Amino acid sequence: MYLHWQNDTQQWQPSNLWPGSDRALNYGDGLFETLRFNEKSNIPLWGYHKDRINNGLQALDFPSNSLAIIAAAIEALPLEARLSAGKLLISRGSGERGYAYDANASIKLLWHSFVAPQWAVERFPQGFQASFSSVQLSRQPLLAGIKHLNRLEQVLARSRFADNCQEMVLTDTTDLVVEGCMSNLFILQDGQLVTPEITHCGVRGVIRQWLIKNHSVKEQPLHKEDLLEAEALFFCNSLNGIIPVLQLEQKIFSSNSASWQQIIGLQRQLENVFC
Amino acid sequence: MYLHWQNDTQQWQPSNLWPGSDRALNYGDGLFETLRFNEKSNIPLWGYHKDRINNGLQALDFPSNSLAIIAAAIEALPLEARLSAGKLLISRGSGERGYAYDANASIKLLWHSFVAPQWAVERFPQGFQASFSSVQLSRQPLLAGIKHLNRLEQVLARSRFADNCQEMVLTDTTDLVVEGCMSNLFILQDGQLVTPEITHCGVRGVIRQWLIKNHSVKEQPLHKEDLLEAEALFFCNSLNGIIPVLQLEQKIFSSNSASWQQIIGLQRQLENVFC
Repeated sequence: MYLHWQNDTQQWQPSNLWPGSDRALNYGDGLFETLRFNEKSNIPLWGYHKDRINNGLQALDFPSNSLAIIAAAIEALPLEARLSAGKLLISRGSGERGYAYDANASIKLLWHSFVAPQWAVERFPQGFQASFSSVQLSRQPLLAGIKHLNRLEQVLARSRFADNCQEMVLTDTTDLVVEGCMSNLFILQDGQLVTPEITHCGVRGVIRQWLIKNHSVKEQPLHKEDLLEAEALFFCNSLNGIIPVLQLEQKIFSSNSASWQQIIGLQRQLENVFC
Repeated sequence: MYLHWQNDTQQWQPSNLWPGSDRALNYGDGLFETLRFNEKSNIPLWGYHKDRINNGLQALDFPSNSLAIIAAAIEALPLEARLSAGKLLISRGSGERGYAYDANASIKLLWHSFVAPQWAVERFPQGFQASFSSVQLSRQPLLAGIKHLNRLEQVLARSRFADNCQEMVLTDTTDLVVEGCMSNLFILQDGQLVTPEITHCGVRGVIRQWLIKNHSVKEQPLHKEDLLEAEALFFCNSLNGIIPVLQLEQKIFSSNSASWQQIIGLQRQLENVFC
């Protein structure tokens, strides 16, 4: 189900059609969020999504009323559009041809409801298999952390997934580890949670930020070897939740370790947030 | 005027509406070209545009029949859509949610006709004013040269144009000069045309490639100082043509120099191609 937000009537209208003059279409000039609902049709992690949207709106210099429009639109989602998951696309709106935008143009919102997959630990109880991707992320501090619509690097990385892998580890063009193609990445060292800093590329994922808020997490540069020498590692995103890695390249991680159990514990905490 | 290509009937249909599930909208998964017509409604530099489209299709792993579809669609443009300029948007097409694409999906084409501006030398006979942009381009060799739809860096750079500047010089994150926000950049040194290599970021513009084909051009790394110490410099793109720079930061370039006249001569040659 696709819906468009009508700012004049403050309502969502069913429609899958979008103007050809839109800046999200022409330049990727916008943001998106993938949201998971609980059984009461609420979005337990909405506060984290909203924070990231706000960072994105500021990074892209969107009009100052944009966050209020988005919050009202999410609030006004009809019950039938509150399936277990949804994707919100936020465009700067339509404009004249050319990179310059009208600072007073009004944002446009597209909502796409879909059925969330089960948490990844239910579908892959043995954990994910992963490799290092040959696609390296470019370093652009002006866009780091936000979930913007310029996603060609992820499209290329996704098309080059190794056989049997559910996720791939992306490094940047200086060989630092950044994240997965669709998720953030953490390692465990002596029980300590460590994750790459997201300062030059990558997305500050909602589950990543929830973990940082609720646990002691070190953000520091990580190299490929740090991953291979870790006690355990996991990927996380809004739809998959938190999923340990069984195998990275040739390295097998034991599911009997305390670190593995610690990861499963984090996933259970996340599930409780959605109860 | 907006038109959509109908591959089944091999015709363009008037429509400004585009599906919300489209991958160009969701990920910038596509390419674009800005084309200038001559008075006979032909595209004199179509061969150069086609070469760049082909490079882009290959870089993004588009289906192998895509170039033939695009060439047929351009050929079939109705006379009323062949105004003095047009923008062709090439999307990978619609798909399921997620970065993974269907390798057999058919591309989608959107055409937008518009009236070309006069050549820049007619509008700015004194030349362009320019400065160095604070926005630096990220380095991604996998996407360098092609005209893809991930254009947030250009959107940010365009929004930060200095007062009175018609174009800005973009460096990359290693401080090498790459191009303008909307055009390529050349300098003249002892009568020799020199332009940055486009290997890690930037677009291989059609006028750039036309100059390389028809003149002796050195492609080499350029630093900011090389520009400030050049005899003359110019920007070029399909709509503006070739336009000398009067002022870059504090440096004024003399319009009485032989190099300036050489630039004007290149613009006249380009105009002849469009006669």
